[in-house]
Amino acid sequence: MIELPPEVHRLIDSALTEDQAFNDPTTQALVPPEIQGRGILRAKADGILAGLDVALAVFNRVDNQLVTKELLQDGSAVSPGTELAVVEGSAGSILKAERVALNFLQRMSGIASDTNRYVLEVRSVAGSKSRIVDTRKTAPGHRYLDKYAVRMGGGFNHRLNLADGILIKDNHIQALKSQEMGLKEVIQLALAKASHTIKVEVEVETLDEVREALEGGAHIIMLDNMPVDMMQRAMDIIDGRVVVEASGGIDHDTVRAVAGTGVDLISVGALTHSTTALDISLDLEFS
Amino acid sequence: MIELPPEVHRLIDSALTEDQAFNDPTTQALVPPEIQGRGILRAKADGILAGLDVALAVFNRVDNQLVTKELLQDGSAVSPGTELAVVEGSAGSILKAERVALNFLQRMSGIASDTNRYVLEVRSVAGSKSRIVDTRKTAPGHRYLDKYAVRMGGGFNHRLNLADGILIKDNHIQALKSQEMGLKEVIQLALAKASHTIKVEVEVETLDEVREALEGGAHIIMLDNMPVDMMQRAMDIIDGRVVVEASGGIDHDTVRAVAGTGVDLISVGALTHSTTALDISLDLEFS
Amino acid sequence: MIELPPEVHRLIDSALTEDQAFNDPTTQALVPPEIQGRGILRAKADGILAGLDVALAVFNRVDNQLVTKELLQDGSAVSPGTELAVVEGSAGSILKAERVALNFLQRMSGIASDTNRYVLEVRSVAGSKSRIVDTRKTAPGHRYLDKYAVRMGGGFNHRLNLADGILIKDNHIQALKSQEMGLKEVIQLALAKASHTIKVEVEVETLDEVREALEGGAHIIMLDNMPVDMMQRAMDIIDGRVVVEASGGIDHDTVRAVAGTGVDLISVGALTHSTTALDISLDLEFS
Amino acid sequence: MIELPPEVHRLIDSALTEDQAFNDPTTQALVPPEIQGRGILRAKADGILAGLDVALAVFNRVDNQLVTKELLQDGSAVSPGTELAVVEGSAGSILKAERVALNFLQRMSGIASDTNRYVLEVRSVAGSKSRIVDTRKTAPGHRYLDKYAVRMGGGFNHRLNLADGILIKDNHIQALKSQEMGLKEVIQLALAKASHTIKVEVEVETLDEVREALEGGAHIIMLDNMPVDMMQRAMDIIDGRVVVEASGGIDHDTVRAVAGTGVDLISVGALTHSTTALDISLDLEFS
Amino acid sequence: MIELPPEVHRLIDSALTEDQAFNDPTTQALVPPEIQGRGILRAKADGILAGLDVALAVFNRVDNQLVTKELLQDGSAVSPGTELAVVEGSAGSILKAERVALNFLQRMSGIASDTNRYVLEVRSVAGSKSRIVDTRKTAPGHRYLDKYAVRMGGGFNHRLNLADGILIKDNHIQALKSQEMGLKEVIQLALAKASHTIKVEVEVETLDEVREALEGGAHIIMLDNMPVDMMQRAMDIIDGRVVVEASGGIDHDTVRAVAGTGVDLISVGALTHSTTALDISLDLEFS
Amino acid sequence: MIELPPEVHRLIDSALTEDQAFNDPTTQALVPPEIQGRGILRAKADGILAGLDVALAVFNRVDNQLVTKELLQDGSAVSPGTELAVVEGSAGSILKAERVALNFLQRMSGIASDTNRYVLEVRSVAGSKSRIVDTRKTAPGHRYLDKYAVRMGGGFNHRLNLADGILIKDNHIQALKSQEMGLKEVIQLALAKASHTIKVEVEVETLDEVREALEGGAHIIMLDNMPVDMMQRAMDIIDGRVVVEASGGIDHDTVRAVAGTGVDLISVGALTHSTTALDISLDLEFS
Repeated sequence: MIELPPEVHRLIDSALTEDQAFNDPTTQALVPPEIQGRGILRAKADGILAGLDVALAVFNRVDNQLVTKELLQDGSAVSPGTELAVVEGSAGSILKAERVALNFLQRMSGIASDTNRYVLEVRSVAGSKSRIVDTRKTAPGHRYLDKYAVRMGGGFNHRLNLADGILIKDNHIQALKSQEMGLKEVIQLALAKASHTIKVEVEVETLDEVREALEGGAHIIMLDNMPVDMMQRAMDIIDGRVVVEASGGIDHDTVRAVAGTGVDLISVGALTHSTTALDISLDLEFS
Repeated sequence: MIELPPEVHRLIDSALTEDQAFNDPTTQALVPPEIQGRGILRAKADGILAGLDVALAVFNRVDNQLVTKELLQDGSAVSPGTELAVVEGSAGSILKAERVALNFLQRMSGIASDTNRYVLEVRSVAGSKSRIVDTRKTAPGHRYLDKYAVRMGGGFNHRLNLADGILIKDNHIQALKSQEMGLKEVIQLALAKASHTIKVEVEVETLDEVREALEGGAHIIMLDNMPVDMMQRAMDIIDGRVVVEASGGIDHDTVRAVAGTGVDLISVGALTHSTTALDISLDLEFS
Repeated sequence: MIELPPEVHRLIDSALTEDQAFNDPTTQALVPPEIQGRGILRAKADGILAGLDVALAVFNRVDNQLVTKELLQDGSAVSPGTELAVVEGSAGSILKAERVALNFLQRMSGIASDTNRYVLEVRSVAGSKSRIVDTRKTAPGHRYLDKYAVRMGGGFNHRLNLADGILIKDNHIQALKSQEMGLKEVIQLALAKASHTIKVEVEVETLDEVREALEGGAHIIMLDNMPVDMMQRAMDIIDGRVVVEASGGIDHDTVRAVAGTGVDLISVGALTHSTTALDISLDLEFS
Repeated sequence: MIELPPEVHRLIDSALTEDQAFNDPTTQALVPPEIQGRGILRAKADGILAGLDVALAVFNRVDNQLVTKELLQDGSAVSPGTELAVVEGSAGSILKAERVALNFLQRMSGIASDTNRYVLEVRSVAGSKSRIVDTRKTAPGHRYLDKYAVRMGGGFNHRLNLADGILIKDNHIQALKSQEMGLKEVIQLALAKASHTIKVEVEVETLDEVREALEGGAHIIMLDNMPVDMMQRAMDIIDGRVVVEASGGIDHDTVRAVAGTGVDLISVGALTHSTTALDISLDLEFS
Repeated sequence: MIELPPEVHRLIDSALTEDQAFNDPTTQALVPPEIQGRGILRAKADGILAGLDVALAVFNRVDNQLVTKELLQDGSAVSPGTELAVVEGSAGSILKAERVALNFLQRMSGIASDTNRYVLEVRSVAGSKSRIVDTRKTAPGHRYLDKYAVRMGGGFNHRLNLADGILIKDNHIQALKSQEMGLKEVIQLALAKASHTIKVEVEVETLDEVREALEGGAHIIMLDNMPVDMMQRAMDIIDGRVVVEASGGIDHDTVRAVAGTGVDLISVGALTHSTTALDISLDLEFS
Repeated sequence: MIELPPEVHRLIDSALTEDQAFNDPTTQALVPPEIQGRGILRAKADGILAGLDVALAVFNRVDNQLVTKELLQDGSAVSPGTELAVVEGSAGSILKAERVALNFLQRMSGIASDTNRYVLEVRSVAGSKSRIVDTRKTAPGHRYLDKYAVRMGGGFNHRLNLADGILIKDNHIQALKSQEMGLKEVIQLALAKASHTIKVEVEVETLDEVREALEGGAHIIMLDNMPVDMMQRAMDIIDGRVVVEASGGIDHDTVRAVAGTGVDLISVGALTHSTTALDISLDLEFS
């Protein structure tokens, strides 16, 4: 079982509090404390598993006498019927924790599954080495978990947070244009003032900006919302000198064409901002 | 501006901490503190607005000198280009808060928008009074916000949490079957033991169970995963004596047919477990 | 041992911090770490036990090497001398935790004991089925524990919190009177706007209001501060059609007469807002 | 308005969360946002006011647009009908905050009122200078507030927490008896090991122990559970050499006799462990 | 292992979060999960150990499967090469926790070591019984740990916090001078209004003030920033009647002379406000 | 005034709670609430100011009626007598907040001052462009503040936390040696597995390792604990191809020689692990 950071334990507590897991009149009325149960977490759709440790931590947080056993590890492929884990002990405790545990598990597995579809689509492009990367467009409070799920799906993480690197966006460039600085000067200013230990990435929208970014010395160039053919020309200009990221509205329909341009990174905001829960259920048996 | 509960303020703080909004090397390097900006939150797609107060609270949490002004209220319909709010003050502060503010606003507006599509679909069915309701399948830590967004989209809230009512599900019934009790007895036990002030809902899958639920005295019957024609027959049996909820895998394709059966409530887990962010951007102008 | 919700663990931490349990100069000066002790929690008065799990959790929070053993379960009747639990291990740890553990246990047992007196008084009324219920008048931060203690004493819980149901009070009615709406219309508005899944209760003070409440369709009628004879006439009018709650200044002197009217629920704010600690001590033996 | 420490702000937040003050379906259904109200906090019994700042902080925490005005200060005597404070603004906000605000105010005023009765009883004894002091028997999480309320009632605070002084109790003495040390040696050990800046108090039950405590050099002697005549003999023995505290089961019936012995401090656990809420209501007017 | 108070557990969590111990790309990339290691905490300089329990709690917080073993107890003298503790288990977990664990341990051991140097210097003065005491000049959030480390170094604690005693400083005296009160009256006012259970200390800068403090009845006199010869004359005036503390700019050069005057307490702010980390390393071995 | 991140507000709250700033018997006894004061924060030594916003936030947290005014900005040079800020309002509130405010301000200004000495020493070396950088050896809970103070002193920040970049240390290399991998392979593994957006730094101790690190493709080479002449030879080998950091036991005596080698970065752990408070006082005047 992987360890969970303090903020995830706090999020689990918040989730149990907001669901009033310890104030469940249904279980109090109907499930006598002596009834023991055996809950099986089971996939009901195809996908990639992520968040099993978090889900089991929820059960243990509700009742530390519950015995949990993982049958698979995060990152595994699952299909309808695949058994993921077993939880044994007080049936009442299992029922109180069920919804919160599934809410974590289904969201995280949904992210991993969608990421994996992108990863497989890219791999299907001959010679492609493009990596699928996430963005900072995560559910508030879920940054760690969302980014973890992306890795489980075979994706890579872009910046964890603002402090992780310099990313010069349109708004920054506009701010300095009002000070009469061009893109090249903006990049050089960033390089001069930033820590030697982080990279400088710049977002560009035209081929002229690509050239300026190269002259400025950016470590990474993000091609933002470019049509694929313009992207291809940008790649020719860059010619392997810096890392290149494609970004902006890329989806399952377009990702293969983007990967075909040879970009290093393809970032997809929808991985975490528009998620589809993977269907997973808890089946409870009574002994 | 609506007031936000303590747990939402804590979630805002968590989100700013996980994004390291106060440790932004890009802004530190490039945006001199004296630069003032005017940020406009603008919709880039059709939908229903929700979360504007939360988004503006994020800006104010980062810098309480920022002046924010709402141009619309939550629940309003928006389309590409609609201006939602204005934030004025230090450009650096606006940039540090931007991503977290948008992460809240896009998720919540996405939920409201999808809810509203269901609501409109149901309204298009002649004579339908079915309400679209949410479930407890919310993102952990977002229960209050997710359910608020559903209301903004014209939906209604089902149980806020486990404590809000008794909902007898299959697993509870199984637990008591192992004690040799039938559905009717289970419901009567729940009515006897529960508070007089809450309602008792029971999940049924067959028409026989519908009849047992009626005999048991359930206040609400949830028709779970029933085909529409079986649902119709259940409605005939129930004949207006109790509130009826349809549940289980209902989507935009099937919701109208379900509404046509005359059920009181149609619950849709996907409203909150499978969300699509509404596209909203922050455009920054410099004076 | 029952599980405790996250907010109770936080309250235990707050209580230990405010008592500086880890900064005890008396124990530091006088009790050498090698001294082992055996503490016995013992009732010194008649009453009903509640909070034993919380008290033992306090000892374990101070020192997770302490071995605790419950001798009775919450809800049990105790009398002077009854042994409740044993705590063994470092005498210094037991002494540091003692006061905080007793503060929880004495308050909760006091609530359970007083509740139980009401319950027995009601049961002594021939044919009475009235339930003793609590209110939201709990010590801030103690909602869960106070309401749990009421259940241990044989009482039932009214609304856990505002979200649990609709309760139309005088102030709400006044607010709408200023909009020229009568009681009946107020109830109908509440029924129309509220979730189908919660009940609507209305507070009335006169027999006319009782009639209006019935016409409006309230699920529960609260007879507020009515003399017993008026209450009886209200019961005649209602005639079993809805659940009836008696409320307002009911105490040990009047509860039997109120129960005699046949009301379903008797709510007593004093159960939690005016509590008398049950006398319980920790006797420490040294080996 | 007095400032509140961080832990009180957190307790207010906990109380609002546990009452779901921001999820109030009654107010949502019935009180349109444009309705303005004027709430008057009014005493309904005789007593001493305490906690008004906390109560008003609750209203402001729910809605910082509410305008609050204190009409009296904590420590003031009130009687039925006395107006304490006014809260103006959104009627819905006032209603959401009402219960939590009153829960703080009624508990704290109840403590102050009961303390004041003891203080007046002691003052009625000719020549008495005894101070009424509290104990550490406070509601968990309420240490600061409970002790503040005691001061408002004219009482004084004993140790705020364990770290505030050395108090040698029976259990400490027993622990060291098992090491073959007598009371005198125990006190001397405490004096030797403790900080020079704190006082050493010792709990005694017999006149021999009083003599030993004096020989040992205790700064304060606590006469625990002594009959009044034994207390008087203890006072003769002590003869003004050290501060004397009377403790143990002292109530309104016995406090005058105890004060008559000339003890410096009379500690009363019931001040905070067995509290009676002072009846206070919020009357809401609509403009 | 000593128990840690709740605020220390929270500080450990904050430290792990701010160091992103669960987001370590170096370990993720390079240390396969199956690699086991054995980490030895080893002193690299002479000093006194403090904080070992805290450091080991950090390792266990990161991974509760790590097996930790203390080889020495806090308060022990160490020299280069001394082995302090062993941590065994997942090498990756040990590496993630290393820096935070050392940050606690090195600071606390640095404080204990410097305290101990003062203690030994005072002991080298013939006949000296002066105690080295700390101040409230601790790192924010570290009050408990800093004061604990002082005790481990052989020092004593002054006031833990403001509530622990009355200390009348120059600013308080000035405040009351503006009310036309002299030092003696100020002390008497403090004695009259304060709890009987705490001591009153007063800060003086001249011999006249020493005399006034004695007349006022102060329990402790603090000689603030006095030259040693004036301190000696103050001691003659006081003549053993009250406890005396020397304070203000005392360092390793002057502490012996100050101790020679016979003062009871020597407070040194630098113990905690100007700390030098004790060099300690973690050596990792692989099996 | 700069904005403070949520974790700093929480640290301020922790510091006020641990100092019991709202339970100050000295101020309660001696400073009547109506007394107004004017506090001046004044440097008493030469140095660089840092933390003024944090200190003033402490005063405002204790009493939001206090009016604070900054006279200088963080990063300014100060000398004995320099006035830093003014705080006006209730004298009691100023006194309660004083110690906590100074504890933040003196630590942070001490860090800035010491950093600045290193920066000036490096600048005194002809042609040197070396930057002084900090490490992760910060006081637990103070990461943000300690690193901010380093910047105010003219230093630069190294990794904010583990997630900020890959830094391959001796322990990582040893872990993989046990898997029969050489330094070059370790670096290549890190480059392959890590995000494209972060840099890979490697710690080396010999010139052979320098060559391997270059071959492996490290972005930054850290020369750890090398004598200056070996460092110089390493610089010759590296010949400007990558960024170079010198680390390990560098102090005010050796920093100039290290800077003379032309390394890009000089990291100094003592900046934050061994701090000397800058002497700053609060002088209070009464009107």
